[in-house]
Order: sequence, then C-alpha cells, then structure tokens
Amino acid sequence: MTKLKWGMIGGGEGSQIGPAHRLGALADGLFEFSAAALDHRPDVGRTYAKSLGISEDRAYGDWKEMLTREKNREDRIDLVTVATPNSTHFEITKSFLEAGFNVLCEKPMTMTVDEGEEIVKIASKSGKLCTVNYCYSAYPMVRQARDMVQNGELGKIRLIVTNFSHGHHGNAEDANNPRVRWRYDPQMAGVSGQFADCGIHALHMASFIGNDEVESVSADFASTIKGRELEDDAMVNFRMSSGIVGRLWTSSVAIGRQHGFDIQVFGEKAGLKWKSEHPNQLIYSKVGNRTEIIEKGENNLCEDALRLSRVAIAHPEGFPLAVANIYVDIAATLKGDKRANLPTASDGLRSMAAVYSATESAKNNGKWTDARPPMFR
Amino acid sequence: MTKLKWGMIGGGEGSQIGPAHRLGALADGLFEFSAAALDHRPDVGRTYAKSLGISEDRAYGDWKEMLTREKNREDRIDLVTVATPNSTHFEITKSFLEAGFNVLCEKPMTMTVDEGEEIVKIASKSGKLCTVNYCYSAYPMVRQARDMVQNGELGKIRLIVTNFSHGHHGNAEDANNPRVRWRYDPQMAGVSGQFADCGIHALHMASFIGNDEVESVSADFASTIKGRELEDDAMVNFRMSSGIVGRLWTSSVAIGRQHGFDIQVFGEKAGLKWKSEHPNQLIYSKVGNRTEIIEKGENNLCEDALRLSRVAIAHPEGFPLAVANIYVDIAATLKGDKRANLPTASDGLRSMAAVYSATESAKNNGKWTDARPPMFR
Amino acid sequence: MTKLKWGMIGGGEGSQIGPAHRLGALADGLFEFSAAALDHRPDVGRTYAKSLGISEDRAYGDWKEMLTREKNREDRIDLVTVATPNSTHFEITKSFLEAGFNVLCEKPMTMTVDEGEEIVKIASKSGKLCTVNYCYSAYPMVRQARDMVQNGELGKIRLIVTNFSHGHHGNAEDANNPRVRWRYDPQMAGVSGQFADCGIHALHMASFIGNDEVESVSADFASTIKGRELEDDAMVNFRMSSGIVGRLWTSSVAIGRQHGFDIQVFGEKAGLKWKSEHPNQLIYSKVGNRTEIIEKGENNLCEDALRLSRVAIAHPEGFPLAVANIYVDIAATLKGDKRANLPTASDGLRSMAAVYSATESAKNNGKWTDARPPMFR
Amino acid sequence: MTKLKWGMIGGGEGSQIGPAHRLGALADGLFEFSAAALDHRPDVGRTYAKSLGISEDRAYGDWKEMLTREKNREDRIDLVTVATPNSTHFEITKSFLEAGFNVLCEKPMTMTVDEGEEIVKIASKSGKLCTVNYCYSAYPMVRQARDMVQNGELGKIRLIVTNFSHGHHGNAEDANNPRVRWRYDPQMAGVSGQFADCGIHALHMASFIGNDEVESVSADFASTIKGRELEDDAMVNFRMSSGIVGRLWTSSVAIGRQHGFDIQVFGEKAGLKWKSEHPNQLIYSKVGNRTEIIEKGENNLCEDALRLSRVAIAHPEGFPLAVANIYVDIAATLKGDKRANLPTASDGLRSMAAVYSATESAKNNGKWTDARPPMFR
Repeated sequence: MTKLKWGMIGGGEGSQIGPAHRLGALADGLFEFSAAALDHRPDVGRTYAKSLGISEDRAYGDWKEMLTREKNREDRIDLVTVATPNSTHFEITKSFLEAGFNVLCEKPMTMTVDEGEEIVKIASKSGKLCTVNYCYSAYPMVRQARDMVQNGELGKIRLIVTNFSHGHHGNAEDANNPRVRWRYDPQMAGVSGQFADCGIHALHMASFIGNDEVESVSADFASTIKGRELEDDAMVNFRMSSGIVGRLWTSSVAIGRQHGFDIQVFGEKAGLKWKSEHPNQLIYSKVGNRTEIIEKGENNLCEDALRLSRVAIAHPEGFPLAVANIYVDIAATLKGDKRANLPTASDGLRSMAAVYSATESAKNNGKWTDARPPMFR
Repeated sequence: MTKLKWGMIGGGEGSQIGPAHRLGALADGLFEFSAAALDHRPDVGRTYAKSLGISEDRAYGDWKEMLTREKNREDRIDLVTVATPNSTHFEITKSFLEAGFNVLCEKPMTMTVDEGEEIVKIASKSGKLCTVNYCYSAYPMVRQARDMVQNGELGKIRLIVTNFSHGHHGNAEDANNPRVRWRYDPQMAGVSGQFADCGIHALHMASFIGNDEVESVSADFASTIKGRELEDDAMVNFRMSSGIVGRLWTSSVAIGRQHGFDIQVFGEKAGLKWKSEHPNQLIYSKVGNRTEIIEKGENNLCEDALRLSRVAIAHPEGFPLAVANIYVDIAATLKGDKRANLPTASDGLRSMAAVYSATESAKNNGKWTDARPPMFR
Repeated sequence: MTKLKWGMIGGGEGSQIGPAHRLGALADGLFEFSAAALDHRPDVGRTYAKSLGISEDRAYGDWKEMLTREKNREDRIDLVTVATPNSTHFEITKSFLEAGFNVLCEKPMTMTVDEGEEIVKIASKSGKLCTVNYCYSAYPMVRQARDMVQNGELGKIRLIVTNFSHGHHGNAEDANNPRVRWRYDPQMAGVSGQFADCGIHALHMASFIGNDEVESVSADFASTIKGRELEDDAMVNFRMSSGIVGRLWTSSVAIGRQHGFDIQVFGEKAGLKWKSEHPNQLIYSKVGNRTEIIEKGENNLCEDALRLSRVAIAHPEGFPLAVANIYVDIAATLKGDKRANLPTASDGLRSMAAVYSATESAKNNGKWTDARPPMFR
Repeated sequence: MTKLKWGMIGGGEGSQIGPAHRLGALADGLFEFSAAALDHRPDVGRTYAKSLGISEDRAYGDWKEMLTREKNREDRIDLVTVATPNSTHFEITKSFLEAGFNVLCEKPMTMTVDEGEEIVKIASKSGKLCTVNYCYSAYPMVRQARDMVQNGELGKIRLIVTNFSHGHHGNAEDANNPRVRWRYDPQMAGVSGQFADCGIHALHMASFIGNDEVESVSADFASTIKGRELEDDAMVNFRMSSGIVGRLWTSSVAIGRQHGFDIQVFGEKAGLKWKSEHPNQLIYSKVGNRTEIIEKGENNLCEDALRLSRVAIAHPEGFPLAVANIYVDIAATLKGDKRANLPTASDGLRSMAAVYSATESAKNNGKWTDARPPMFR
C-alpha cells in the first residue's frame, strides 16, 4: 500500500484546525505529510513544517510558492488541504484546482455565491476532486442515517429539524475579545455571523441525510449582544425540492449548550435523531412502535457506516475520527472507489447561496426567498 | 379546615381529562366534589356523577341546569371546572362568571380573540377568579425557573427557545380517525391545528418563565399529511415586549417524540433548561461556569417551588400533581393568599391572539405580525 | 360508589409520610379519611386530625383508644395505615389484625424475624389484609416488568442487579444530627443501618419483578464515617430459589446520588432496566436486538400497568401516585378483585430475615448464609 | 521532531487490536511503523506488514526473528507492542525487556502471579519501559478524576464503585461459538473468565483514580450459562490500603448493556462519576451542593487532561484516541518527560494477583483473601 502524498496550507502552530487535519490525514496510515505552507509568516511556517517532518525543500513559505514548486514535481502531492482564513479559501482553492490538484477546503468554501459558482465550474472542468470539510457528515451514524433515508426505511421524508446551538459567545464581557468579535463584524465575517459559521453545518446535514436540496428559506436573525452587527442567533425555515419542511435554529448565545448540534428527520414511516455530542447512537422510532437505539458497531449497519468505524460496538469514536473519515473517503475516491460520500463543491456553493438568501429574508420581514444558487435554478 | 366545594362540567366517563381534574382537585384534600354536569347526554352524566359520590340533587343533566340551580343554593360551589369541548368554553365560562362563580377553564379559553376579550372584561368586572388550565406552569421546577428569572439570576433575558413536539398524529393511515382528524379541520378546530393545540402551552410557558408578553410573531405552518387543512407542524418566531427573541417549534408528526415539550431560557448571566418528560430537574448554566442540575426538593429552592412539592428530593412528581398544583393555587387564592401564580384570563386571551396572528403571518409569507390582543395594544 | 373508610396512626403534622399517605388514599376518591391517631401527644394529634376534617369522635389521642373505639363501631374503618416509628409497627399491626382490621404497615413491618413470623401467622388466621408499603412495586412500569418476566418474555432469569444509593448521609459534619444519627445506632435502628433502611426496598423489588424468593446471602457491610456502629454502605450478593444470581448495592454516602434506586433483570432472552428517578420508562433489550424504550401509557402494556396509570403516554407519573397505587390495589382487593399485586406480610417477614442474615454474613467473613425465614425453610 | 520507531507483534489482518494500535501509534505523528511480526503464519505476516508500509527487511516471520534482528540494528525500534494471544504475553514481553527494548503489552500482562513478579523484576533491572495497555486510564477525563482525587478535592476517599458489564456473551445459542467459548474454558483463559477479561480494567481504574492499591477481596462468581466452567458474572468486594471500600461488578450476560464500564468515587467532600460510553464528561457532586457536569476541554482542567485532548470542548473524543494517548505518554516518557501517567508492570502484576485471589475467595464461600502480590506484601 503506497501512501498518498498530502500537503496543507494554513493550520500553523497553535491553531486547532492544523492538528485536527494532521490527525485526520495520518490516523489511518493512508497519507504521508509531504508538503506544507503553514503560516502567513514564511519563516515561521517553514520551521514549523520541518519540525513536523516535512523535508526542507517542501517546507514552503507561502501557498504561491507551494503551488509553483509542487506542480513541477514528479512526486507532487495528491491532495492539498486549505485551512487558511476564510477569505482566502476561494483564491487558493481555485488556483490549486486549476493547476490540477485535488483539494480539501475548509468551510466556508467561498465568501460569495459568485465565487462558489466559479469553484464548481473549475472543479468540474478540472476533473479533480474538490471537497469541503463538512466533517460531521462522515460520522458512521450519520452515514447510517443517510442510508436508511435512501433505502426508504423512513418513507417519504416530511420534516427535518436541526439545531446548532452553543453559548461560547454569550458572555457580553468577552464580546470585544478579537477572537470572538470578528464573527459579528461584516468586514471580516461577510454577510452573516452565526448562521454562516455553524448554521451551514446543520443545513448541509439536512441535505446530506435528507438526500435533497434546499430550495427556499424564511429567516429571522437576531443580535442579542449590543454592538454586534451580524446575527448571533438565527432561525431559518426552509423547504427542500421534494417538499420536505425544514427548521434550523442556530445560536452562539445559548449559555450552557456546548456543542448542541443535532438533527431529527421525520418521514411517513419513522423518525430518526442524532446528536453530535453523543455521535455513536441513532434514536430510531418506527411509527406505532417503540423507540430503538441503533449503536455504531452493530452488525446490521450499512456498509458505509461499518467502513468508517474502527472499533467495536459501544467503544465511542469522536470528532477527530470523523475528520479522519473525510480523509478515508478522499483516499478511497482517489483510488477509484465510487462509494465514498464526500461533500462536493456544489455543497459548498449551496451553503453560500443559503447564507445570502437567509440574510436577505431576515432583512425582508421573513419573506420566503429562493435559496438555490443561480446556476442550479 | 373546611373543604371548598367544587363542580365540574364535562369530563365524563371514558374521558382522560375528567379523572385528571378529579385527582387534581381531591389529591390534597382541599376540595370536595359537590356538583357536576359530566356528559352531553343528561342521564348518562347524572348516573356517572352519582357513581362518583355526587348527591342526587347536584348531579345535573347539563350546564345550564347546573348554573340555574347552583346559583340559588346557599352552599353553592366555590369553583367550577369547564372541561367540555373547546367550542363551548366561551359560553359556559362567561355564564358562570356572570353568575358570580369562580372558574377554571380548560384551554383554549375561547375560539376567537373577541370572545377572549369579552371573558377578560367579564372576569374583571365580576371580581371572580377566572383561570385557564396551563398546568405545566404549576410544576415546582417551572415555578423555580420563573423565580430565578424574576430575581435576576439569569440577568436580562435575551432568548427563549421552546418546543412542543410529538408524533401521535404522524401515522397517515390513522389520519382519518375522527379522534385525530378534527384537529386539522377548521370547522371543528378553528383557524389553527397543532399550534392552537400544543403550541400555546409553549408560548404561555415562555411568558410565564420569561415574565414578559409576546408582542409580534412570524410564523411558518405546514401540513405534512395529505388532506389536512390545518397545520400539523409550525415554527413561530416571536418578540416579547422587553426585546426577548423567541423561537417556538411545535409538531404532531415528529414520530418518536412522545411529549417533547421543553423550554430553554438564555439571559446575560445564565441559561436554564426544563423538559416536561423529566420535570423534576432544571439544567442551569452560569456563563463561564459548569452546568448544574437543580433538583426538585433541594433546600434552597424558592418558596413557590417548595410549597408545590409533596415529597423529598429525587422522588419524582409528575403531571397529575401539576394539575393538582393548579387546584392548590386556586384554593390558596380563594383563601386570600396572594402568592399563587395562576394563569389568568388575560393569558387565555393572549394565546388566542397569538394563534390568529401566527395564522395570519403564515399566510402572509412569514410577515411579522402584531400578536397582542387589541385591548392590550 | 361508596368510599372505603380509612384511618391512619402516626404521620402527624410536619411528617413527610403523613401527607404521602393522605394523598395516596384520597387521590383517586376511593377512600375517605375517617379516623386518626396522628401524634404521640394526644392533644396535638386530635387537633391536627380535626383540622384535616376528621370528626371529633374519631380524632383519637393514641392508637389504643382508636383500636378500642373503632372496633365497637358499626361503621368501623375498612383500613388502617400504620405510619408510626419503626419499633412500634409490630405491636400496632398485630393488635389491629387481631381485632379484625385490614392493615397497611409502613416498612419495616417488624424489627425481628420472630415478630415477622408472628404477623404472618396472625394475618393468615385473621383472614384480613396485611400489606407493607413497598410502594415502588406499584409503579406501572414495575408491574409491566413483573408481567414480562411472568410471561416468559425474558426467558429464564439468570441475574438481577439492583442498587439503592444516595448520598444524603454522606456529610460527616451532619452525622451527629439526630435525624441522621439514629439510623446507625443499634439501639434505635436494630441490627442494620442502610441495608435495613433502603436495601430491603431493592431486595423486595428483586423478588417482585423476578417472581422468586431470596434463599441465601453473602454480605459486605462498611461504616465509612467515624462513630457509626451500623453500616452506611452494603453489598449483598444473593441467590434465589430458582437459581437467580443477585447483586445488591446500597449506600447512604454516595454523594451526588439522590435516589439511585434501579434494577436490572437479565434473562436468557432479554434484559430489562428500570430507574426510580425516571420511573415511566423501561429499557428493554432482546438478545441480538436493539435496545427499546417502553413507555408508560403505551397501548400494549399489561393490564396491571394500564390500570395503575392515570394520564397518557409520556405524561410522567411520580412517587406520590405509586403510593396511591398501593391504595388502589387495597381498594380493589377489599372489593374482591383478585388481580391486585400487593406486597404481603410474608414479604415483610422475608425482608427482616434478609436483614438478619446479611448482618450475620457480614460479620462472618462474607459467609453464604441462609436468608429464608425459619417458617419458610 | 524525529519520530520514534515502533514495532508490533500480533495484530494481524482482520484483528481489531492491530488497527487500534496502529491508529494509536500513528495518529499524532509521534511514531513511525518500522518493524512487525503480525501473524503466527510467517508468510502471511510478512506480506501484510509490507502492505502496511514496513520495509522488506523488517517484515518479520515471527517474534523471535524480530527480536534477534532488531537487537542487532543501529536503528532498532524504540518500542514494541505485544498484541498476541494472552498466553504468549509473558514470554515475549520478558524476552524483549531482557534485550533492552521498551514494551507496551496488551492486557493481561501474564497468566500467573509468578510470571507477573518476574516481569516486574526484569523491567526494573532493565531500566526499560514496560507498560500495559489499560487504555481507559488515558482518557482525559479519567486523568482529570485522578488529579482531583490527588489534589484532595474529594477529601479522603471512602468508597469506589465500579462496573464493567456487557451482554455480548449472553446468547446461549452462541455460547459454543469458539470466539466466545474460549473465555470460559480454563484451558485457554486461565483461572477466571469475565473478571480476568473485563473486571481487571475496572480494578485498575479504581487504583488509578483512587491512587491506592487493592489489599484484599471477597468475591462471588457465577456461571449463568450451562457448560461454562469459568464465571460469566462476578461481584468482587475489595478493600484498599488506605481503607477505601470497593465494589466491582462485571458481567458478560447483561443483555442490553453494550460497554457498561463506569466508576463512581465517593470521598468525604465530593463524589465523581465517569462512564466509558460517554467518556467526555465527569459528573461531580460536592457534598451539600448541586451536581455539576465537567466537560473535556474546559479551561480549568488539569494539565494532564488538557495535554491529552485534541479538540475543543464538547467535540467528543473516543476510544481510539485513548489508545493514542497511551502512545503519547510513551513518547513523552521516552523523551524524559516525567509527567506521563502510564500503567506499569506492577499494575499488570497486581491485576493477576487480584484475579487469583478473587477466584480463591469465590471458591471459599466468599472469604476475604489477601489480593496483594507476594512481592508487595
């Protein structure tokens, strides 16, 4: 088994996302860490890269150097992860795709819908993999849920209810801390705060499990702490193409909630519930029957769920290995395995379209607004 | 201790509500069951009343007979409970109030806003007690939550999120069962289905704990089962007078949820969570601190919570005794105790105003709509 | 429906047990409170009884007066509840049984095995009802569990594991508080502390659900707070007649546990779990299948569980109504209904035999010791 | 950062333990997989090793070849993991220690107490690291619990209660499946079944968190399925050196329990609870205060807990990364960091002593039996 060669841009020393990607890429022995441009300070980045075992000649000072030099190598990297600040995702992803690299981009893929459409087109033209790190979708039990919906076990889906609430930005005294403040400043965060930050994970999950796309939204945004221009709490009602009714609440001022990301899917025949803080179970209720607990590691799970589990039933597997599962699926895809269920550039684009539509609806008295990217209307 | 004399209209044999009120009224030995008109079939009602220990002369054939005869007795009942079909609540409540009786009315108090305003005026003029059976507000830990909000332990309240979801009407094959169907038929249920049935409990709870009133709403209603005219799923965003942001989801097609009524209240200093299926705990999180579990029966609870508990910490107390607590508070009020926290006729009116406003908003593209009763604007 | 006439001894003002029995007896309208000797201070007891609506002539100064006068009345009480201090249970219960009264005795029924055997004999000879307030056995879902075991749904039972842990006596600074101290003083509490106080509830539950009797025990007792003569923590292994293996842990120093009474029953075909703090669910796991949640109020529960529930599925019912269910079953039994599943005098005796045997085993290096009352060997 | 060189014996294709160790060693980029003897079939093992990226010359046919060749290399492995069948652990661990290698041995470290004492002596003499894979002790929140006990936050510990129950061997029809049967066959499993398999994890945890050693035991073993010679259910009472009272229940026939490993620690000042199925929280109750939930990732955790966490609060981390934490601590130790809290050879020895003592006690009517290894008496 030859390992795939992997590079990362961003994720420098002290970041949380860098170690998460390194663990994700390395945990299963599928990738080797071959090239990196880890910091906006070239020397710092090079030194750190070398300390992580990157060879001198592939410890780059910035992404442009990395792009130029890697594309001329015979042993060029098989995958680049873009883990830089949000506003740079578009340019870097675009450049690497155009140069023929496979890309895993952190979310959000772009800052605007136009940019998103451009990435979708470039990715399609390039024939390369462009995936977005909606890593919750790679939990085994989320795959199991998707499979059950696809197999019709829930019947036609009527309703999806999803929340992503936390309280980590709920302290008014901490609101001017730069680490918090930028989220609510349109100069830095774009048109939306909490919905763009956390809500789009929930919206992607609704599409992923529901196997359908959001068509329109009606939103209510609120800024509950003085001085915040962007919303720290949002309710987004939505409708999907097949008629599924959607409800999405997201908040960063829900003091006491830590990582309150959950989803409930209700169909004609059954309902399902999954919670990100206890991701190894699904709560499954067939109409007229008792609620059952489906455990990761059960014998009868779908192939996708089994493939993405590492240890036996009731041995919990957590968030870092969900990220690793994204890398497992990338490796599978690069080796021609068609079964992988990776988020796509279209998913990244749809998120951005939803962000803009919800923002517009919230400004327009809750008016129902088309949430599809123009190119998909 | 002389017991108060109590009468009930409706709640005949085979109903669930009748036994709940009887237990509520009798459990603490505060009332004696003295008069009744239990069934729309006079003979059936009389016979059943007598089997429950009502004397021959106070086992009435209908509410009009009961009204006429009771008002002429020296030992007239101190309280009448109205537990008849919804459409009759207004007329019966009005008539008994006008005749000088204290009334406990099942929810909804009326079918229209106009009727609600009329009851409020009559109740006020009569000087009699007119309360509505929002019995969840009488759980000890709900009283504790209200007390904590009033005492400022949560700081200024920013956000209230409440859900009332169940899946008991989620079976399409059962949708034409008359017991289910009437809820979604405007001829019988009025302008709203699930929101009027369950949602108003959640909305009352938001007002009760938040100590504030709903001012405007933006709603999204959905009928997920073919043939239903009224909504079986609703999302209602709201704003309260003090600026509190509100989110309310209610559903009757959430298969697997049994009695998914919960509320989260988030303030500047802390968050609280209460769940009706496990009503003896509050989940309390002070900003920057660990989440704590507050137990019914703790030494340091508010007087109201202690007064309405019967057994020691961690001995669960359930729904029937929440109903009993309404009767405890009625007895207290009738004896001049000002501490009781009973729902009022105004609460009943506000619910109806919210139902109409949400219905209107849902029909108008989610438009934000004034939800206050005209007389309170 | 004529109400049964009920009297109580003990349970005076300020006690917790008095209100619990009054609510239990009155909640369902099956009994009227007709006679009482509520306090060891005759005048206090009489005054309090009258304040609760007892007529002058049946507000007694002590139990002997009550016995003498009630047995000469035509309208003598149908049931007497003995809620006095533990050491008096035997004499009072004996006297009322001999005089032909039905008795509900608080636990423990007696202080010794000999006394227990005497009560069993007297009860049998008298033909009167003698029941002990093991009220947890009257929760609907406990009845459901028993029914499932009896019907063979779990197959042959292999193992029962039950705990009754709390931490309310875990504060060393509070250990000399008389309200706590007496429990660990052999002069007042008898041969055992925590096992006799809480453990016997768990042991009765094992017999009740397992439908079998304890035959032998091996015990380990510990006193974890200086100055306590009797155990505040006990582990009792046991074997039942049919070979069931049993494990029972009980503690009063388990700081953080409030009312940690639970039971797990494991058979050849399935396992069941019930927890007293959330008594409205059973966790049910068939071998090789997913775990299911059985809810109080489901359509398909056993007759006993349905009969003892008052409100619909997922409306919780708590401890006070479990006590009320004991009264429901007493009323049923007194009216000739054979279905009632009341604890018996033999159950009360077996508890005492287990207490003595476990004490002996703990003193004898954990030696396995016969736990059957001599009369049942 | 130079990676440490790592080798593994056992853990071949299709095993569960092999991938768990590979992920553990590779996840954080601290080790490179350099040498292996993965299978008892030399060719199969060599081929599989090469497929995992091991070079031709270090893909060994068996552990003896690996030992001989590695000890003569300049670049010999820094650590060998022994993941072979239980009965071979002693010989392999001994041989590698004697040759100057650091060893991570799967549990049980040996099959007898004598062997355990020998390993302890050899490890001590060699000056090399010999650690046993009690990986649950490497969960961040277990380290936090240990730290809190060491810091006196719970006061003097009075009582430890731990369970390790599952139902995966509860199906009688599956009992002759060789994968299950060997556990209960003394020829293969030694003197104990379930206690030696799972119980010793719980016993180690009691020592680890309680910071104390088991001194004596009183045990009750049961074989609940016909044909099993060794116990499938065990209760072990114990006492620790400082007087801590211990209770340990373990079962493999607890149908419905998946991985029911939990521990409760009760001291003078507080109680703690941890559950392996939801390993990212501690339930903490100070005497007289409310129960609090401590979350992995909180700011105020001990250094050890922070060091062994990879992602932010409420992002769950599971079992595979607990194994990885063992490798993190091994790497730290090998680099001279004294803070690492690894299980020791003495821990492995104490487990075996407890297994033999509990077995003896169970055969001797529950007699209290010294559980210390002779060399530590």
